[in-house]
Amino acid sequence: MATTATTQNQGYDTQDCAKSNVGLPALEISAAFPQATPATLFPPIASDYYQFDDLLNSEERSLRKRVREVMEKEVAPIMAEYWEKAEFPFHVIPKLAALNVAGGTMKGYGCPGLSIIGSAVAMAELARVDASCSTFVLVHSSLAMLTIGLCGSDVQKEKYLPSLARFDTVACWALTEPDYGSDASSLSTTATKVFVPEEDRLPGVNSFQDTNKVLAVSRVMVALATNRHINGCVRHVPQERKQFGAPLAAFQINQEKLVRMLGNIQAMLLVGWRLCKLYESGKMTPGHASLGKAWNSSKARETVSLGRELLGGNGILADFLVAKAFCDLEPIYSYEGTYEINSMVTGREITGFASFKPALLGKVSRL
Amino acid sequence: MATTATTQNQGYDTQDCAKSNVGLPALEISAAFPQATPATLFPPIASDYYQFDDLLNSEERSLRKRVREVMEKEVAPIMAEYWEKAEFPFHVIPKLAALNVAGGTMKGYGCPGLSIIGSAVAMAELARVDASCSTFVLVHSSLAMLTIGLCGSDVQKEKYLPSLARFDTVACWALTEPDYGSDASSLSTTATKVFVPEEDRLPGVNSFQDTNKVLAVSRVMVALATNRHINGCVRHVPQERKQFGAPLAAFQINQEKLVRMLGNIQAMLLVGWRLCKLYESGKMTPGHASLGKAWNSSKARETVSLGRELLGGNGILADFLVAKAFCDLEPIYSYEGTYEINSMVTGREITGFASFKPALLGKVSRL
Amino acid sequence: MATTATTQNQGYDTQDCAKSNVGLPALEISAAFPQATPATLFPPIASDYYQFDDLLNSEERSLRKRVREVMEKEVAPIMAEYWEKAEFPFHVIPKLAALNVAGGTMKGYGCPGLSIIGSAVAMAELARVDASCSTFVLVHSSLAMLTIGLCGSDVQKEKYLPSLARFDTVACWALTEPDYGSDASSLSTTATKVFVPEEDRLPGVNSFQDTNKVLAVSRVMVALATNRHINGCVRHVPQERKQFGAPLAAFQINQEKLVRMLGNIQAMLLVGWRLCKLYESGKMTPGHASLGKAWNSSKARETVSLGRELLGGNGILADFLVAKAFCDLEPIYSYEGTYEINSMVTGREITGFASFKPALLGKVSRL
Amino acid sequence: MATTATTQNQGYDTQDCAKSNVGLPALEISAAFPQATPATLFPPIASDYYQFDDLLNSEERSLRKRVREVMEKEVAPIMAEYWEKAEFPFHVIPKLAALNVAGGTMKGYGCPGLSIIGSAVAMAELARVDASCSTFVLVHSSLAMLTIGLCGSDVQKEKYLPSLARFDTVACWALTEPDYGSDASSLSTTATKVFVPEEDRLPGVNSFQDTNKVLAVSRVMVALATNRHINGCVRHVPQERKQFGAPLAAFQINQEKLVRMLGNIQAMLLVGWRLCKLYESGKMTPGHASLGKAWNSSKARETVSLGRELLGGNGILADFLVAKAFCDLEPIYSYEGTYEINSMVTGREITGFASFKPALLGKVSRL
Repeated sequence: MATTATTQNQGYDTQDCAKSNVGLPALEISAAFPQATPATLFPPIASDYYQFDDLLNSEERSLRKRVREVMEKEVAPIMAEYWEKAEFPFHVIPKLAALNVAGGTMKGYGCPGLSIIGSAVAMAELARVDASCSTFVLVHSSLAMLTIGLCGSDVQKEKYLPSLARFDTVACWALTEPDYGSDASSLSTTATKVFVPEEDRLPGVNSFQDTNKVLAVSRVMVALATNRHINGCVRHVPQERKQFGAPLAAFQINQEKLVRMLGNIQAMLLVGWRLCKLYESGKMTPGHASLGKAWNSSKARETVSLGRELLGGNGILADFLVAKAFCDLEPIYSYEGTYEINSMVTGREITGFASFKPALLGKVSRL
Repeated sequence: MATTATTQNQGYDTQDCAKSNVGLPALEISAAFPQATPATLFPPIASDYYQFDDLLNSEERSLRKRVREVMEKEVAPIMAEYWEKAEFPFHVIPKLAALNVAGGTMKGYGCPGLSIIGSAVAMAELARVDASCSTFVLVHSSLAMLTIGLCGSDVQKEKYLPSLARFDTVACWALTEPDYGSDASSLSTTATKVFVPEEDRLPGVNSFQDTNKVLAVSRVMVALATNRHINGCVRHVPQERKQFGAPLAAFQINQEKLVRMLGNIQAMLLVGWRLCKLYESGKMTPGHASLGKAWNSSKARETVSLGRELLGGNGILADFLVAKAFCDLEPIYSYEGTYEINSMVTGREITGFASFKPALLGKVSRL
Repeated sequence: MATTATTQNQGYDTQDCAKSNVGLPALEISAAFPQATPATLFPPIASDYYQFDDLLNSEERSLRKRVREVMEKEVAPIMAEYWEKAEFPFHVIPKLAALNVAGGTMKGYGCPGLSIIGSAVAMAELARVDASCSTFVLVHSSLAMLTIGLCGSDVQKEKYLPSLARFDTVACWALTEPDYGSDASSLSTTATKVFVPEEDRLPGVNSFQDTNKVLAVSRVMVALATNRHINGCVRHVPQERKQFGAPLAAFQINQEKLVRMLGNIQAMLLVGWRLCKLYESGKMTPGHASLGKAWNSSKARETVSLGRELLGGNGILADFLVAKAFCDLEPIYSYEGTYEINSMVTGREITGFASFKPALLGKVSRL
Repeated sequence: MATTATTQNQGYDTQDCAKSNVGLPALEISAAFPQATPATLFPPIASDYYQFDDLLNSEERSLRKRVREVMEKEVAPIMAEYWEKAEFPFHVIPKLAALNVAGGTMKGYGCPGLSIIGSAVAMAELARVDASCSTFVLVHSSLAMLTIGLCGSDVQKEKYLPSLARFDTVACWALTEPDYGSDASSLSTTATKVFVPEEDRLPGVNSFQDTNKVLAVSRVMVALATNRHINGCVRHVPQERKQFGAPLAAFQINQEKLVRMLGNIQAMLLVGWRLCKLYESGKMTPGHASLGKAWNSSKARETVSLGRELLGGNGILADFLVAKAFCDLEPIYSYEGTYEINSMVTGREITGFASFKPALLGKVSRL
């Protein structure tokens, strides 16, 4: 029944107004929504419909299993809470370190020498449970460590990689400035010798093309990870929750959405996988990687949006995870090259024309 | 240039891990992004491209001006901060009260007797600056007060409405239970006389149809408000920000998005306005209202998503407002009837068939 | 039941192969699909859900009624056949002439001096039954006659307009060349005095801006007409046709589509109407008109595509009209300025930057 | 320049009105649009961006090459003309027969015993050049022959398959009735012994489940073929055609579309390929096949629509092929189970709930 409750409210002066003033106790979600899948119980994989497993070798499957176990045991129970607090669970880093994935495909210097698909699958498993953890490892391993690995001297590799591979040291990697985001090749920061010693300069970085090689690999990682990031969504639609006497999953309009999501996820998995295979065989171009990142992140966005709406009112509660996935997808859509920039990278490759820059003929007066 | 910074990290034991452990100072947005439009400077109206003003009378325009001024002065400077804290600015209530809009179209009992379009325009102006404020007033005025106004006895109206109209009392309104969301007509809560005194029962509420009358009006409010909610987005694309030597607004791909957003906004305004006119002339049906709510909120979602991506990396910072609008739109998309439920309400009206309930023939075994 | 029929086939030599060779009689649609709405029975208006009628004055309503009657009586019964034959029903022209709409808002020289909304509504009624007829009148009246009316000398107006207004003469209007379509301002044809006598030169056409004035008006016409063009679609979903024991209109997934179509149509109507009002008050800019054309034709395309899929297999038979509407919409989406060009026209107006032309820095080699 | 031509027109009486009456010669496309890619020169494959070739074995590649050569030599030069005439080029059948693909994966009885992927790739190559040819072979081979192969007696197989495999006989296959389309399991036709002799009854067809086995295979064919069907679109955007001084392919807004199309095509290829692999390993379920058909045909529709708009005005001329592809996709979207029906098939499989049938509680009165 619709009811109307009123609350006496005296004053509202700027000083002592607070939530408690309206006389309502804080909402206790667990009491109010006993039917909710607790965020701490991360849903089992339910969307590997086309049996992606067949495309992995036993080593890659075993790696995936290990990463999944750690993420479900250590991260899943706490991530919603950390997300709400806008904090990172630094205490989890040793658990991530024990997975021995940092360094990805690199061999030597303490790096694990994974296959590209193994490395991407590990990233995808991190992403499946928490986008912040996967982004943390992505930047550490596929951007920072890989930059050193591809462009550093032997001395630099020896100095940095082993401790980074063990997460004894945490790396960060920057490719932005207030005035340059997408136009990353125009950054104006200059490293001076007053400040950066010669021994810290990476000898292999001579032009933006060297950075592009690193980005191409990390885009493959993102391409495959996006699908796992949204993976849980399909399962999050509680088959137990009923409306109008029927489980949500029994409604025609909901089934169409679930199937669309499932189709997107299969396609994203396969696009990510194919990208790894192209890389492995030495055939992958920057355009290939950019297409994978752009297309997959665009489908991920569509998919997570469908997942969000499928849960209706529950879909905006942090406790149901899909709201988190919905928000987490936005930085992913824009980082590693926005959708638009990656489209232009591929567009240049397939047409032969660069279209990044508009022809600017002077501002016309508005009509 | 891409650079790699590393930070020594000792330990990561569960106890003393904190952000400061990685040795980085907290990010000071204002220093890092001097080019950002501070959230405290709310952008001027920029998307009334088809001059909606012409469709308002002078009283309605003056009301809109008053609401806008209060919202820009009192709420715009603080809302991003409150949103980040997940708190409501209760101290603003007296300012909202002074606008004299609570009670909307009702006359007498201290209510302002606005035109429906005036009432909706006021709501839209609240929504333009902050979705939480507009939802707060929507529930208070268009759900709770209206329920009393339409279904209460004279004694109840006299008892509650004047103080509600002055915001001396704040109303809330509930139409949900853990097991029933969209299926609102099936709520199982029973009011007993042990608990609710007879004098608090609303004599005019006899079936869900009575509640539906209230919902139809509030859906008109939401339909018109959605467009303002996303209104600022067009302006938020900083014409000053340059990439590749050109303002973002000069890129072909961005202009197409801006124009699509602008088209959506004009259409949403007109749909909301037409709905008010139908209401005013006594012709509005529940299906009309549901179509307006469903269609407008669906276009709002598309529009705010375009706005989010237009800002790239800036679009995920709270300081640029569009991330807030992007998230705020989700509850709006689902409340007052989800997109799907409202589609079914209109669908039933235009086809004569109710399709809310699926035919459930028993769960089949999965293949 | 699935059955398999086989047909003996001897030879297939290029000469005597014909349809009859496979031994099947030609399909007689009327016998095979007795349930089909015959194309000759044009469905009554069913999608004026928000009662657009209220926004017309009695003269405009009466004009609409007259045009509708002629179109339903004279054109509806024959258009599918002419469309299949790819021919134009020239014998209908006298009936169109009798409507007295050619010349639109122009007064004098035999023109009817309609209100802009009246003129657009007439065009919309033509479009509702047949896009070829409405395009025929659009080019004749809103492009050719209007060009003479706006840019011709009094002598030229006297010479051409009265006979054009009576359709004694049929006008055509060209703004294209093999190498220039969207880039209409660059046409290279030169009129020489060897060929075009001075008296046939329109003195008021001095730059592309003069042509733009004409285009702005015809875009208003198209903006309003698009909605009627797809109008019938909603009704074409036969409420009588059943699958799985229920009328198509009773399926949840179909109702959502119908409602989305209906929402689009209401919005398109209102956008077209508002454009007329802006024009009437002298406030309409080229950007306003381009937004209306681009946005409306884009929504029309989405709507007619939904209509096409709603009818399933019937939706690809000419007899059900929606296949015709689906195809007819494509030239409309591209003529009077493509979606993209119109977006750029509005984009330039709202941002101050022209983005038509890309910066072409020489073709790069492909990777 | 915009010019206005007028044509004297006397009479328009029903009898002698014809195209020639307006005094214009028929348009000769080849003269008017010398820049057009003649439809008879079918564009080379340009969209195998992710090198799908790597996923085929040498036999499959060689088969593909053979089919492609025949289609480009024999069908490409004539298909636009036959499509315009709405006729089928029966004289091509012997050329199709020589490819030795009819019967697909079946062995014996004159059938080629192809791998499923080989069979699907052959179908895709047919589809790439002409949807009518591929549909012709699909029905003949994957529906009719397969039905006999899976459900026929040895005598029936011996009687029909060899001649069908050689295309000496052409098969058709029907699964529809005026009152039943999507609801195919409810067909009411009864075969009587007065009419169908016992020896023509297929002993293996006992329920709709047997038909479903056939449909699952043909849906795999369609899933893979859809991508080739639209394959040419990417190439059809003439890189030579210029507007505003730049090739169409150099525009930012066009590159984004090309890249989106390319991403869709890669994903569709991979989804189709994966489906074949699942089939090969005996793991494919009806839901897998339906997802592939629904998802791929839905992306094909989006892709071909982008291709259509990319060509602007040229995109509606039959000579540019994309208009043909745009129209041809519509029956494909609806046949072999509409998008909706296939979604429900997969939906039932993943949720355990059948949602085909709505709960019909009697028609309510409107409003």
